[in-house]
Amino acid sequence: MSSVTVRAPATVSNVVCGFDCLGFALTEPFDEVTVSLRSQPGISIEPDAIFGLPTDPTENVAGVALAAFARAAGYDGGFEVTIRKGIKPGSGIGSSAASSCGAVFAANILLDQRFAPDELIGIAMSGEERASGSKHADNVAPCIMGGFVLVRSADPLDVVRLEHPPLWAALLHPQIEIRTAEARAMLPTQVPLADAVRNWSNLGAFVAALASGDLELLSRSMEDCIIEPARKRLIPGFDKVVAAARSAGTIGAGISGSGPSMFALCASEYDAHRTVAAMLEAFGESNIEVNTYLSPIDPEGVRIL
Amino acid sequence: MSSVTVRAPATVSNVVCGFDCLGFALTEPFDEVTVSLRSQPGISIEPDAIFGLPTDPTENVAGVALAAFARAAGYDGGFEVTIRKGIKPGSGIGSSAASSCGAVFAANILLDQRFAPDELIGIAMSGEERASGSKHADNVAPCIMGGFVLVRSADPLDVVRLEHPPLWAALLHPQIEIRTAEARAMLPTQVPLADAVRNWSNLGAFVAALASGDLELLSRSMEDCIIEPARKRLIPGFDKVVAAARSAGTIGAGISGSGPSMFALCASEYDAHRTVAAMLEAFGESNIEVNTYLSPIDPEGVRIL
Repeated sequence: MSSVTVRAPATVSNVVCGFDCLGFALTEPFDEVTVSLRSQPGISIEPDAIFGLPTDPTENVAGVALAAFARAAGYDGGFEVTIRKGIKPGSGIGSSAASSCGAVFAANILLDQRFAPDELIGIAMSGEERASGSKHADNVAPCIMGGFVLVRSADPLDVVRLEHPPLWAALLHPQIEIRTAEARAMLPTQVPLADAVRNWSNLGAFVAALASGDLELLSRSMEDCIIEPARKRLIPGFDKVVAAARSAGTIGAGISGSGPSMFALCASEYDAHRTVAAMLEAFGESNIEVNTYLSPIDPEGVRIL
Repeated sequence: MSSVTVRAPATVSNVVCGFDCLGFALTEPFDEVTVSLRSQPGISIEPDAIFGLPTDPTENVAGVALAAFARAAGYDGGFEVTIRKGIKPGSGIGSSAASSCGAVFAANILLDQRFAPDELIGIAMSGEERASGSKHADNVAPCIMGGFVLVRSADPLDVVRLEHPPLWAALLHPQIEIRTAEARAMLPTQVPLADAVRNWSNLGAFVAALASGDLELLSRSMEDCIIEPARKRLIPGFDKVVAAARSAGTIGAGISGSGPSMFALCASEYDAHRTVAAMLEAFGESNIEVNTYLSPIDPEGVRIL
């Protein structure tokens, strides 16, 4: 085998009370990444022409991740990469993670699976670091592993695949740009201990609720008194959209990644349809274009197409 | 039935990364609380003579809790209470919670179980508030419910009984006094966001590890970069004792409540014996007297004796 194509799914990170540690994978949208081996060193990238992504492999997240892969594998050949972006860059649903993960996952198949999934996460994180300016795993880890993933520690890497009931996500993506680094700079460097306690109590309850399938508890635990108040100012209509999602019977809603996408967790496909309709209607008053996505939580993560 | 005696177990709260939200119940030690109904209003308390606890029901935690119980129940008779303390006051293993919980649990049996367990927790918390100066549920909740309990919110009360594998606890109680209010005053009011993230990532992993029975993950998640550094200065030999427990193969160790007791979670009775011996030896160089306790995690909580 000298060429392989994989689908690498979108992911939601910073899941309300799970800032910088909790993410989940969607079935759609996804990137298609094709990787071929070649004997001469170097990485050539043919990115999706639509989005004007860099072809220089030291600037493209997939190139950065593959260079890290080659170093880790002691591989002295090269790669040719073609990327068809299903996930719009800057949407806040793990676009760069998908390209990074797709590239290293495909390369790993071509090079006889020399790395285990958590090793691949560590390698793909270097692409993510290039994109966001910080090393975090809460998009990369669910993209590789599927489902809900808790990042106990990014360095050294320690990730936990969480048990969870079948769930759906409804997403609303306003077509505005929020840069991850900018959104990060808005955050407080210090937080009141009482707020921190409230957040970790909620995260503990969130994990317990996923494990037991208690959707009422899951709903109550989806509150964030630290990150959301700082970041929601960047997202027009945020409060209205979340209130509409709640009224439509969603389990809980919040900012996806560092925005601008907003997501809602739902108990069923029917609920997800109702919720996305309500979110869309609530947002509709503004003049910003939106995309919507509807997807089950993806149990598998990146895989061969 | 006009009199009932219950055993109310010791509890460990502030479980390392679970400050102010996570506690578990021990099988031993425990308080024995006997409550009788009487027709005339008022509460008379016969506390354990050894510890010089107050007999004034507005000063005694069991009295405060029973007064709250009577108000909630619309009960206009009185109570007679006898307490045999198996748990030394000020030990940091939920002594006041045990007396409060034992009293209201017994009264609830005498008055035809009018309150559900989580209602009893809310009532017993008023005794706890009298003792510690703050309203928290992470001793009271496991004392009533048994096992590991996460307090998602103290007000409004929202508690979650966590699934967990069979575990043992080893405890070392240096005979020094630490006042809960004092230990609370030592804490930072603001914490770095990065430390808060680290703590909630650990707590999420702790809850996931309890649910899945992954003791390796449980062990890695038992770290605390916020509360322990501030409070351990009050506990002589803390670092040595924890290091000794770790060397002896414990899952993890930390401060019980606000101290001075230190606890270690262990996978078996054998490990708990080894651990308590190591903790004792490490502490032995100081001239302070100690008590030790060894107990399985109690699945049931307060119950009729």
